[in-house]
Amino acid sequence: MTHPLRIAIAGLGTVGTGVVRMVQTHGDKMLARAGREVQIVAVSARSKGKDRGVNLDAYAWEDDPVALARRTDVDLVVEVMGGEDGPAKALTEAALSSGKHVVTANKAMMALHGQPLALLAEEHGVALRYEAAVAGGIPIMKALTEGLAGNGIQRVMGVMNGTCNYILTQMEETGADYEDVLAAAQNLGYAEADPAFDVGGIDAAHKLALLAATAFGTRVDFAGVTIEGIEHISLTDITQARELGYKVKLLGVARMTDEGLEQRMQPVLVPARSTIGQLDGVTNMVVVEGDFVGQTVYTGPGAGEGPTASAIMGDVMDIARGLRIPAFGQPANTLVAANRAASAGAASHYLRFTLTDAPGTLATIAQTLADQGISIDRMRQNDHDGSNVPVLIVTHDCLRVNLDAALAKIAASDVSLAPPVALRIEQV
Amino acid sequence: MTHPLRIAIAGLGTVGTGVVRMVQTHGDKMLARAGREVQIVAVSARSKGKDRGVNLDAYAWEDDPVALARRTDVDLVVEVMGGEDGPAKALTEAALSSGKHVVTANKAMMALHGQPLALLAEEHGVALRYEAAVAGGIPIMKALTEGLAGNGIQRVMGVMNGTCNYILTQMEETGADYEDVLAAAQNLGYAEADPAFDVGGIDAAHKLALLAATAFGTRVDFAGVTIEGIEHISLTDITQARELGYKVKLLGVARMTDEGLEQRMQPVLVPARSTIGQLDGVTNMVVVEGDFVGQTVYTGPGAGEGPTASAIMGDVMDIARGLRIPAFGQPANTLVAANRAASAGAASHYLRFTLTDAPGTLATIAQTLADQGISIDRMRQNDHDGSNVPVLIVTHDCLRVNLDAALAKIAASDVSLAPPVALRIEQV
Repeated sequence: MTHPLRIAIAGLGTVGTGVVRMVQTHGDKMLARAGREVQIVAVSARSKGKDRGVNLDAYAWEDDPVALARRTDVDLVVEVMGGEDGPAKALTEAALSSGKHVVTANKAMMALHGQPLALLAEEHGVALRYEAAVAGGIPIMKALTEGLAGNGIQRVMGVMNGTCNYILTQMEETGADYEDVLAAAQNLGYAEADPAFDVGGIDAAHKLALLAATAFGTRVDFAGVTIEGIEHISLTDITQARELGYKVKLLGVARMTDEGLEQRMQPVLVPARSTIGQLDGVTNMVVVEGDFVGQTVYTGPGAGEGPTASAIMGDVMDIARGLRIPAFGQPANTLVAANRAASAGAASHYLRFTLTDAPGTLATIAQTLADQGISIDRMRQNDHDGSNVPVLIVTHDCLRVNLDAALAKIAASDVSLAPPVALRIEQV
Repeated sequence: MTHPLRIAIAGLGTVGTGVVRMVQTHGDKMLARAGREVQIVAVSARSKGKDRGVNLDAYAWEDDPVALARRTDVDLVVEVMGGEDGPAKALTEAALSSGKHVVTANKAMMALHGQPLALLAEEHGVALRYEAAVAGGIPIMKALTEGLAGNGIQRVMGVMNGTCNYILTQMEETGADYEDVLAAAQNLGYAEADPAFDVGGIDAAHKLALLAATAFGTRVDFAGVTIEGIEHISLTDITQARELGYKVKLLGVARMTDEGLEQRMQPVLVPARSTIGQLDGVTNMVVVEGDFVGQTVYTGPGAGEGPTASAIMGDVMDIARGLRIPAFGQPANTLVAANRAASAGAASHYLRFTLTDAPGTLATIAQTLADQGISIDRMRQNDHDGSNVPVLIVTHDCLRVNLDAALAKIAASDVSLAPPVALRIEQV
């Protein structure tokens, strides 16, 4: 294997440029480590003339990404255009179909079309890898697929959207409201102008679906992820959670249960002193629990030019060295279409009610919860704000379905002045 | 590659038994993931009759580990006997020489003989892997060698001896003295009856030497590691460090500097709120800093049957899948014999003096430090204990050589009642 690995790069935004810079900087190291040269031969992007701060003269240029994918002098295509469908998917299919390896950072494409793309790759005997799509620079897919390959995986959890964790951390630290922190994050470039993918939990849910498929040998099922964003998280809840010893995190959890595959991406409370609770700012964290290894935790930058390029080049180096692991850790035709677990397991919940200040109000709440078999672990009634009485309750373990039934009754009653808030307390 | 990978296990203590249990438990998963069966064909240990809680009937038995290594029906030997020389090394050499892959958990053997063993493996076209030797269940060698293979590595740090971190954590939490906590750890099975390898920093230094060689493409140089144990860490220093906002950790640091390779395993102070500062108990943590990826952190169990078996099976699965990465990430004959850095870079230091209660004492200390160009960032004089005055100083950045010169002068002077204590404050 002393011939060079010839790569083409589709997309020259921040990440694509980072890949060029990395190959130009560390070509010698890559040669020493892989035993062969990693050689960029061609690139493609929308605007040829743009100054990207790297010299592209030595590389062939293609306006059409699909033409790039079909070049006969290319062994591997790096896809960093983005977009779940359209050109990125067309390029990926063209590359795989013409016997080229594909390394992509495209979480949406892999979460939605991972199964047929993996089948296509295997049909043509090439690799399809996407380390950069999940938790940026952290080599988590590698840890899960290879390092822990002897384990039965029990649970995977992750804080995998830096924007959300930044917003929640900033709200706690500065006491600012959600809208103000979001606006500040947008100014800093952490959040997109349309932040729905981030704060709505969709971006993180794409990543969770990819982790879950790999962890449990199931077909990637993005539609099966229960998704809840952080848009409704109020400063009050962050403050109250802290006083109770918790932090609010947008946490993804995937488990295989007797009922089927459980996949949730939602804001939850975790103990402030837990590993996940201590994760502040834009950093990502993934926790993998295996039956032999126990709990392992992986932390690092989840986005940005350098970290994303690093993950892409990790995949490229693997392919240069001859590694051919299937996209989801085992052949795509052996992946099982898992049932979806109807509900998450029982858990303690944090509840916040805004109630009228009248005799019997608390008794009504307690009785309505009790009617659903929900018992109360802790209750706090804090400062009055005029006649609105904020009441906090931490329940004992209960099922969300029972809780929702009780909350619906309470919300519809005349003791409740605002919709009750309920957040799961995750055992991490 | 549909024929089974036939493995032999040399050593049936806790770890070897764990490997047997793991293959017996997850054979189906391994087959699905590797595309071929992982099959135990033979085992070897000192005592054949001992009940190990696993059924060994299906496996051939060898009393002599070298005979095990030479069996013609074996593709890969798992070495979990331990010991840097003797039978473990003889077995490893016999296995590699007869064209068999070797997976070992033996940090001492790899740290001391890694270079010739890696050459031998490459000469015979087989793999020599040792994920289990470094930070137990954490797939850190994989992350460093493969996931981050496109990076220039800038620094590697690790808390890699669970016993030491347990002792330091317990001293801080319970206020007990070193000797008492060590005795308790021995009762719990965390520390060996002869704890010198653990508390003396040698075990952790073996791991650091392996990380450094891989990170920097240098020949493993255990003799080049500056090693300082935790035996002299007093409860006073842990308490004082905490009051200053620090924790004491046995931390390994490896960097490539202009002077050469710096490798240190020593107790240092780190900010209590830093990632490393928050690591309590027996858990291990490795931090890798790459020029593109930035900082990534890996946390998990550093020892025990399940975690160690998990790491071994990760290596076995890689080999089953056809991965053939050299032991130190690049061919052993391309590894450089690095110069050793004469000293660690400048750093802030924590100093504790026990001084006479006489006029001019502090002036003497300050002047002696100043004579070596060392300036003082913070100074604290705490409660008197009779006539002994404990004085704490945090210096600005200084070189250890200058500090040692000043401390020697102070220790020899008549103002000092006990040897001064100096601990580096590591920028993490």
